[in-house]
Amino acid sequence: MNSFSEEVTLEGHIIDSWTLPRAFDTIMDMGGSFEVREMQVGRAKDEVSFARLKVQATTEKKLESILVALQSFGAVLASRDDVAYLPAPADGVLPTDFYSTTHLPTQVRLNGRWVNVKNTEMDLVIIISPAFSEAQMMPSAAVCKGELVVVGHEGIRILPPQRSREREVFSFMASNVSPEHPKRLVIEEIAKQMREIRSRGGKILIVAGPAIVHSGAGHHLAKMIREGYVQVLFGGNAIATHDVESVLYGTSLGVCLDNGRPVEGGHRNHMAAINTIRAVGSLREAVEQGVIREGIMYECIKNNVELVLAGSVRDDGPMPDVITDTAKAQVRMRSALVGVEMVLMIATMLHSIATGNMLKASVKVVAVDINPAVVTKLADRGTFQALGLVTDAELFVRELASAIAMGDKHEAQELAEVEKL
Amino acid sequence: MNSFSEEVTLEGHIIDSWTLPRAFDTIMDMGGSFEVREMQVGRAKDEVSFARLKVQATTEKKLESILVALQSFGAVLASRDDVAYLPAPADGVLPTDFYSTTHLPTQVRLNGRWVNVKNTEMDLVIIISPAFSEAQMMPSAAVCKGELVVVGHEGIRILPPQRSREREVFSFMASNVSPEHPKRLVIEEIAKQMREIRSRGGKILIVAGPAIVHSGAGHHLAKMIREGYVQVLFGGNAIATHDVESVLYGTSLGVCLDNGRPVEGGHRNHMAAINTIRAVGSLREAVEQGVIREGIMYECIKNNVELVLAGSVRDDGPMPDVITDTAKAQVRMRSALVGVEMVLMIATMLHSIATGNMLKASVKVVAVDINPAVVTKLADRGTFQALGLVTDAELFVRELASAIAMGDKHEAQELAEVEKL
Amino acid sequence: MNSFSEEVTLEGHIIDSWTLPRAFDTIMDMGGSFEVREMQVGRAKDEVSFARLKVQATTEKKLESILVALQSFGAVLASRDDVAYLPAPADGVLPTDFYSTTHLPTQVRLNGRWVNVKNTEMDLVIIISPAFSEAQMMPSAAVCKGELVVVGHEGIRILPPQRSREREVFSFMASNVSPEHPKRLVIEEIAKQMREIRSRGGKILIVAGPAIVHSGAGHHLAKMIREGYVQVLFGGNAIATHDVESVLYGTSLGVCLDNGRPVEGGHRNHMAAINTIRAVGSLREAVEQGVIREGIMYECIKNNVELVLAGSVRDDGPMPDVITDTAKAQVRMRSALVGVEMVLMIATMLHSIATGNMLKASVKVVAVDINPAVVTKLADRGTFQALGLVTDAELFVRELASAIAMGDKHEAQELAEVEKL
Amino acid sequence: MNSFSEEVTLEGHIIDSWTLPRAFDTIMDMGGSFEVREMQVGRAKDEVSFARLKVQATTEKKLESILVALQSFGAVLASRDDVAYLPAPADGVLPTDFYSTTHLPTQVRLNGRWVNVKNTEMDLVIIISPAFSEAQMMPSAAVCKGELVVVGHEGIRILPPQRSREREVFSFMASNVSPEHPKRLVIEEIAKQMREIRSRGGKILIVAGPAIVHSGAGHHLAKMIREGYVQVLFGGNAIATHDVESVLYGTSLGVCLDNGRPVEGGHRNHMAAINTIRAVGSLREAVEQGVIREGIMYECIKNNVELVLAGSVRDDGPMPDVITDTAKAQVRMRSALVGVEMVLMIATMLHSIATGNMLKASVKVVAVDINPAVVTKLADRGTFQALGLVTDAELFVRELASAIAMGDKHEAQELAEVEKL
Repeated sequence: MNSFSEEVTLEGHIIDSWTLPRAFDTIMDMGGSFEVREMQVGRAKDEVSFARLKVQATTEKKLESILVALQSFGAVLASRDDVAYLPAPADGVLPTDFYSTTHLPTQVRLNGRWVNVKNTEMDLVIIISPAFSEAQMMPSAAVCKGELVVVGHEGIRILPPQRSREREVFSFMASNVSPEHPKRLVIEEIAKQMREIRSRGGKILIVAGPAIVHSGAGHHLAKMIREGYVQVLFGGNAIATHDVESVLYGTSLGVCLDNGRPVEGGHRNHMAAINTIRAVGSLREAVEQGVIREGIMYECIKNNVELVLAGSVRDDGPMPDVITDTAKAQVRMRSALVGVEMVLMIATMLHSIATGNMLKASVKVVAVDINPAVVTKLADRGTFQALGLVTDAELFVRELASAIAMGDKHEAQELAEVEKL
Repeated sequence: MNSFSEEVTLEGHIIDSWTLPRAFDTIMDMGGSFEVREMQVGRAKDEVSFARLKVQATTEKKLESILVALQSFGAVLASRDDVAYLPAPADGVLPTDFYSTTHLPTQVRLNGRWVNVKNTEMDLVIIISPAFSEAQMMPSAAVCKGELVVVGHEGIRILPPQRSREREVFSFMASNVSPEHPKRLVIEEIAKQMREIRSRGGKILIVAGPAIVHSGAGHHLAKMIREGYVQVLFGGNAIATHDVESVLYGTSLGVCLDNGRPVEGGHRNHMAAINTIRAVGSLREAVEQGVIREGIMYECIKNNVELVLAGSVRDDGPMPDVITDTAKAQVRMRSALVGVEMVLMIATMLHSIATGNMLKASVKVVAVDINPAVVTKLADRGTFQALGLVTDAELFVRELASAIAMGDKHEAQELAEVEKL
Repeated sequence: MNSFSEEVTLEGHIIDSWTLPRAFDTIMDMGGSFEVREMQVGRAKDEVSFARLKVQATTEKKLESILVALQSFGAVLASRDDVAYLPAPADGVLPTDFYSTTHLPTQVRLNGRWVNVKNTEMDLVIIISPAFSEAQMMPSAAVCKGELVVVGHEGIRILPPQRSREREVFSFMASNVSPEHPKRLVIEEIAKQMREIRSRGGKILIVAGPAIVHSGAGHHLAKMIREGYVQVLFGGNAIATHDVESVLYGTSLGVCLDNGRPVEGGHRNHMAAINTIRAVGSLREAVEQGVIREGIMYECIKNNVELVLAGSVRDDGPMPDVITDTAKAQVRMRSALVGVEMVLMIATMLHSIATGNMLKASVKVVAVDINPAVVTKLADRGTFQALGLVTDAELFVRELASAIAMGDKHEAQELAEVEKL
Repeated sequence: MNSFSEEVTLEGHIIDSWTLPRAFDTIMDMGGSFEVREMQVGRAKDEVSFARLKVQATTEKKLESILVALQSFGAVLASRDDVAYLPAPADGVLPTDFYSTTHLPTQVRLNGRWVNVKNTEMDLVIIISPAFSEAQMMPSAAVCKGELVVVGHEGIRILPPQRSREREVFSFMASNVSPEHPKRLVIEEIAKQMREIRSRGGKILIVAGPAIVHSGAGHHLAKMIREGYVQVLFGGNAIATHDVESVLYGTSLGVCLDNGRPVEGGHRNHMAAINTIRAVGSLREAVEQGVIREGIMYECIKNNVELVLAGSVRDDGPMPDVITDTAKAQVRMRSALVGVEMVLMIATMLHSIATGNMLKASVKVVAVDINPAVVTKLADRGTFQALGLVTDAELFVRELASAIAMGDKHEAQELAEVEKL
């Protein structure tokens, strides 16, 4: 009955990384069957395992789709052909059978050798240059007529992450930290990792929602930026506007940040904040002319943080620094993401999803929101080191700032003691 | 057409307390009409207003139900009859036309005089003693055969709260503090009011959910109890069990509170905690024999906090101190509520609703939960000084403890300075 | 102490529309005081009332801000000066003291006469043409250098809505229909009103989220469009992509709509759907060439529904019909909104907020989402006829389609009976 | 270093049931290590696999706790001792080292033979009768002094479920049906399974929250009961009260179910409903005397549905049929659960959690709530066939009733056709 078959091999920590049982699952779920032809189980935890399976299906099409699925677990087909490709028929238009990427490291077989594909992002396509044995991922909209786009599934190899042997805070993977669990320890761990990244010159991105300012936690974030814990900041028109409003008028959407009460006529303040910046031309000009002298935007500009403000259709104004064309904003975000090791997404769904879509699987992601549905959505985007915190943005930012300060103090004490010796 | 009519009067701050427009609304909503016969508007803010309305309706029944509705705004019928009453036909059974109470101060007219009704709680009935000109509210289940139960609507007067002229944190009434608003200021205000109540020997009740322990904030609450900020504590089997488990094993539902990770076999710990207390007989015995030496339960017992643990159908065990009969638990809760000025409901819906049902309108309520639907449900139970906080229980309890400690420190400094002089 | 004062008058159903008590509230909240100089209360429900107040405050600034606040209740200053205006200093830049609009009908006093301001939308500015005694609202970004922008608060009159005497489904205003209340009746009422609007040639707008397609309810919406119940449709890249994916492949984000299970490799389908449309150039071309022959997009194009797809930074692709520049999308949306009487916002927060920001207060809004926080946010944007439904988008669309079909059937039967006679 | 070791064996579909990788995970997570001594992988999907592992740890305590954990995956220790037991020191008090059960089928080794333990429920203890080679699970509170309670972990064997080879609707296990997925198909599948259970005389339990009545869907549930689709119904005071109120007065908590508007004075109706039933003595009396002639309670009584109304501390009244002692209510619920194959939990967290705690792993559970957090909590209680639906209770009950009716119609048609032949 299962007249079509193919052999595939899997190698690595395929049992303790759950690769093998997931492969078995997948084959059965998709209506195929398998035989284990060869199996060597690593006896100790530092020995790799190896499996050779005969995969069977009733139709060639079904077999094909099973093989595609197994590919994403790192399965390699016995038949090792080169990758196939076709020219793009028009700008931004792909050959019908284009290959759509995952967010995992990928290789293509070119001229008989496995070549690393540059960039890693989900739902892109792979463009190759056979002459130079080079390949890179690219958004479909950026593909020009005639560029060579990978098609089919032959000659493509995905390198899935091996399971980390050490348990750490980010291995909560896909299981969020609910409001009922202790978060203090988790926040301290995040602070510790941020310190490490900063000390080795790594890059941390914060995707910041307006609630940070609105809830009165803006100055904590500003301090973190000033002290070098943020290298890239993504946001929208709202966070910039709220931040400038709070600096100029002490309000956020007309609510006084000192006493939490609406200021009469204060609803107009955010429009006035936008107008003030429009009048000087840009946030950078406003900083340089001394129009704003503190706040999140001020610190970003003073400390050369890469700032991308992406517009949305619900924006008032907007601020002159906001990129209203979302396609252009994506280009800027992609470029700013190069080298980012850790992303904190705080109280903004739109910009966080946009960012999550662009991340490769190895980036550490912390998603913070009071709405569990948002946290689940963000933490489920498939990175392997996502940590979702269902909690209050204001209190989270305060706690994080305080955990960082505590760490800085310890470090200073240690240094002082070293100098004494 | 409107052939049935009656005159009512309203007096007090009836315009700025929104009483008059709500009365107009109600009449029209219920299909009646009205004429303003007399109206004196207080010219300045300390002058009361007065209105005399002729209320009309097409049927006597409709007129009657409008008058009942107006009564809850403090309207008084021109015709001042005595209150009517009938004997209860059996234990826990009421005369058909029984009057169901509100949570507002109420008077009944007995022997031609207005008499205050003792106790104030929603959905109870009024029992009267004509001989002694006394009246009190009582749950229907507690009414004995033959007791005189108020029926109909004649001779009953409700005293609605007059609008507070000063704006304060509790005047957020019915509009919750969303996660997007600054909560630090609100928490400081709550701490300040708790200090005031403590210093004048008032009573504060905390309705405590198990997430307080589970999230690692239990020791903050224990400290607040030790320092005299809690006079009454309501909870269920879970908070007691989690608290004892955390004291005995360092875990909560098997999750280690020091590192946030599940302890293998730890799931058994909560059953073992219950068994330990069952073996000594009660929480008090456990404290006295030194079985538990810290924690929320320990502090409650050591500091003579009135502790009511009300059972629920989902309980394991339960702890021997848990009152498994919910009717008996209600009796205990009602008795413990006497004199309570402020209630903090933290991360527990069941016990908070139960408590909310028993509160008179003048008690200050703070409802804290990460789920906005729960906060709305709690803050909407009709007290006039409810404040809903959509936030994280762990971080809220920490912040509150820290705001209280800050206040204590200030006080100590002031005292020290006074002594120096 | 209150040395600054001004007289204002209020007229209309100011007591039963709650205008007067809200005015009293506002004055006291803002630290002012007042005297009621004159007061005539309408005796019956069709008689208007009139009040003349002396408003007092300790500083001129405070008095000014109180008067501004009263203006939004329809208060008119005794001193009736003309509106003030200044030229815009640069394109998209306003004079500092610009007046920010509400979403209520507004008049300005020009050359001694009250002139209606064209367009009505919150947070815009008013541009005037003194020569022609004309005024219109405009987004600040659209203001050109030299255009005359209204400043200050003199000579501006807002016409607040008078309370509707009849209770109707939309008077739930600001109090949402919780999941615990019966929704069947509400949905039938919405269907009835949609039928009425359709029969008189009015315009209905649906702001449609991708969950409509994803949950399998797309064909119900398509049917409603085909039968003329939708004149304008707003959405984003996702609903267009999901709709085309479902038409071409029977899946939505790779999930089979016939059995609810993920199709292996199906994750690629949405990219393929986008590529297919990019290859033919546009959705319209795809319809005309027969590439898509059913679905929401198909029906919109076939039935000349005004379709605005506004891009966002999280979009894949996008579809060629998506307007990636959000500023341009706003212009298109504003223009499509002219004449719209009713808006259904279904399962999309971003586009719904964007739409809500542009609506004048008199438009009927139905906001449907399973997340109560979203519904509250949408229904609270200040229209006076907002109805929030916390419910399931799939089941809501099905029920609505079925309620409409039921109504159509009744109408057909009635017509048939009429013809028989 | 790892000086303590033990051999365990695992047998069955241990790879495709994910047992083996979970065992590996657990050993490493708990700080142990392992060697695979022997491994036979079933070649085809109907062949079982076998593994023999040497488990190592640095301390005996650690090794012990790893072995306990492996036990829950079905691992069997090489050393096959009998189960150990100790007498209970007092009524309701356990020996310190008591064994706490899982909700999986369990065997104990008594007199050298594996004996099935009667009943299956989480967090109970095992009582044995060595003389008769019998064992049963029992709540700790029910244990009498001197009864023999299993202690330690020797001689206990858990039989974990083997993974179902066929994919079905209930295999969504732990991954809920989000509001964005098509629910119609899922609801049809539930209806189909209910029909099957009914036709073979099986038992279906509905745990019913008051929102079913409050939202106007009560008559759909009543119909399902009347037609034999419900054998057991669990609820609280609220559903009984709302149901009787709706039957007697047409309202639910004072809201008219015909037009969704509050009835003035209607707030009193639920107290009057309770009083009416208290006056006749019980719901059964009310049915027999014709006081109530329809509704959920009526149908339960008329159709001999096992009805357990468990009280809670927030109850008004309560109804005379409500069991106010929660410990007694648990006993009644446990007894009613015998033989139940499927549970629908609709819009009630308290009673659903209580029920979930008592279920063995093989019962099918459908958890329906509009709050995703509640659904997750219910569907995560560890049954292996849980299906969580984040949706509207009213619309769910309507759809389910309609799907059942559709099925009944098809069946009738088929029968009619058969008869014709």
